[in-house]
Amino acid sequence: MQRSRVYLDSGGAAPLSDRVADALRAGFADGWADPARLGSESRRARALLDGSRDAVADALGARPELVHFTASPHAAFNRAIAGIHAARRGRHRILVSAIERDALLNAAAFVAPHAVDTVDGDREGHVSIEHLTAALRSNDVALAAVQHANQELGTVQRLEDVARATQAAGVPLLVDATSSIGHIDPPTYWDALVAHPADWGGPAGIGVLALEPHTRWLPAWPEGDDWAPGGISVPLALASAVALQERNEHRQREGARLSALVDRIRARAAELTGVDVLGDPDERVPHIVTFSCLYVDGEVLLSELDRRGFAVGSGSACVSGTLEPSRVLAAVGALTHGNVRVALHPGVTEQDVDRFLAELPDALAAVRSRIGAPHIAS
Amino acid sequence: MQRSRVYLDSGGAAPLSDRVADALRAGFADGWADPARLGSESRRARALLDGSRDAVADALGARPELVHFTASPHAAFNRAIAGIHAARRGRHRILVSAIERDALLNAAAFVAPHAVDTVDGDREGHVSIEHLTAALRSNDVALAAVQHANQELGTVQRLEDVARATQAAGVPLLVDATSSIGHIDPPTYWDALVAHPADWGGPAGIGVLALEPHTRWLPAWPEGDDWAPGGISVPLALASAVALQERNEHRQREGARLSALVDRIRARAAELTGVDVLGDPDERVPHIVTFSCLYVDGEVLLSELDRRGFAVGSGSACVSGTLEPSRVLAAVGALTHGNVRVALHPGVTEQDVDRFLAELPDALAAVRSRIGAPHIAS
Repeated sequence: MQRSRVYLDSGGAAPLSDRVADALRAGFADGWADPARLGSESRRARALLDGSRDAVADALGARPELVHFTASPHAAFNRAIAGIHAARRGRHRILVSAIERDALLNAAAFVAPHAVDTVDGDREGHVSIEHLTAALRSNDVALAAVQHANQELGTVQRLEDVARATQAAGVPLLVDATSSIGHIDPPTYWDALVAHPADWGGPAGIGVLALEPHTRWLPAWPEGDDWAPGGISVPLALASAVALQERNEHRQREGARLSALVDRIRARAAELTGVDVLGDPDERVPHIVTFSCLYVDGEVLLSELDRRGFAVGSGSACVSGTLEPSRVLAAVGALTHGNVRVALHPGVTEQDVDRFLAELPDALAAVRSRIGAPHIAS
Repeated sequence: MQRSRVYLDSGGAAPLSDRVADALRAGFADGWADPARLGSESRRARALLDGSRDAVADALGARPELVHFTASPHAAFNRAIAGIHAARRGRHRILVSAIERDALLNAAAFVAPHAVDTVDGDREGHVSIEHLTAALRSNDVALAAVQHANQELGTVQRLEDVARATQAAGVPLLVDATSSIGHIDPPTYWDALVAHPADWGGPAGIGVLALEPHTRWLPAWPEGDDWAPGGISVPLALASAVALQERNEHRQREGARLSALVDRIRARAAELTGVDVLGDPDERVPHIVTFSCLYVDGEVLLSELDRRGFAVGSGSACVSGTLEPSRVLAAVGALTHGNVRVALHPGVTEQDVDRFLAELPDALAAVRSRIGAPHIAS
């Protein structure tokens, strides 16, 4: 019997549900025209776009007129950081947590060369409020960026404490929510927020940027470009909104189910010799877990699992497409090689996870024996 | 009997053909994964993306490895101008024709503030080779931008002459081909080229940038961003390639058919009192014609035609969504108000055009009488 593939790499990308596929079809049928023009076809496209923005804003707890679709989360980071930084005249430095995404760190380094300061955290990935508060004492901080949930560790930040510190310092807080929206309640504390539809079951190729009414920014890009140069795809926006609605409708039940599956993976992986399970076991998104395997090259283990029918992610490879040791895992003092990130989506069943856990020890042993690692029982 | 809508505003946006809709469905079914990751799903997405790039490159006569999908033509202009300008150290100025797109002009002004020089042209929209050659004599020109075809006038530039001048001066030539690819043969003379899939029947939300092997550029954006920060939508890329292939398969026959229809519109519009038909009647893309109507506000005429079942474009409104007088038409010395741009797509029939031409005089007279314009027979 041909076993079906099990996709356990859904952070930032997942198969589309039937409802999302239907939304895409409807969007391409009715929303192909340029929403910026006159004419009935364009008005129809504009109505779909506005409705999609309203729905996403509602789910984020943001004002629709301050929610912008962008070409990608990367583009959203670029624009948000450039725009907010430009409005904070006389203040230059950008504070970031050590485990922010590469895309955010690169955008910060581009906007504020040699003026990005890193705030570290604990082993589970929580940013140090003490260090953040100390760093905010400088008068030269233009903005601070702390993520909502980490895309590798799954750890959820204590944003209430983070925001208390940034608010006391009068520094705008950019929250990367690209791994949390659609999985847990949206964050309550932020001045600017970036989200990623493909992470909640929507299509790739679109991002979301939300601003609070008080958040000041100045355009730092060519005139007429607004937040997304050339506009964005209406069908992708529509499908993003539908996907978020679908996820949120089932979030309580689905979150509990996936969280229990992740608990099972955490427990089983922790029993294996030379395997470290990372991230906060409790304050986490329900669907993500990463573990590191001693004496194993991440790429080789991924290929072995892929051959056996399981797609998983590997540390920084998830974001950058490279296989350099994970910067995030290094920042929390974890083993940075042989990382496996499991990210579950609603299509993953208990049986899928059981099959994965049954296969994992053998896949690991096979890879270890092939590279002549010291024999360790698993 | 309910008459169907006639869409005559297809410059940069058109209803999707069944074949393109099928490509989108296939793309979302098989290309939802992140092409930058490992794993079978990602390899499949990457294969679709690579194949799409190859097909577009082939149609452009470009090298696949030097063809980049971008989030939009705007984004392509931004990156191309910034990247090429950065590589031309010590040279600062950018030469542009007076009738380039707003998106290109805005990108140039952003990259080279107060250092963009405009080369004018004749009444039909051909750039002056004499003026271009004179402007290229400066040693401070970083790049020149001349479009292939104008999105309002339809006029096709004599790029062989343009390129002879830029090559003699050793200045890279950026060609905006966003209104020509899929309609006429691709240009042969360019160092960088921007194209727009939605203009050839593909989906909106994606652009194309092609470079020649000798064209030098330096990254002028955050690290890791490449040409499209965060990557692009694989299904949109696939559908873009399929749409271009479909257009090119039928281009000879379809071009002749649409060109004859445009000739008919040009002839009939020219008979109307107070109507100027613009652009080169011969050296033009087959599917575009713009005319200006004396004593008429473009927006009002568009609405009147829309009410009667016809979608048309109006000067600069086509690109910027605003209703300011068309900069392009002003640059060629044409009447800048009451502009109607007709852009035909393969779904437009002879009967559609006949119905439009039968309705146009009455719509024009109705608008003129409503605003109390001097009585002119039409």
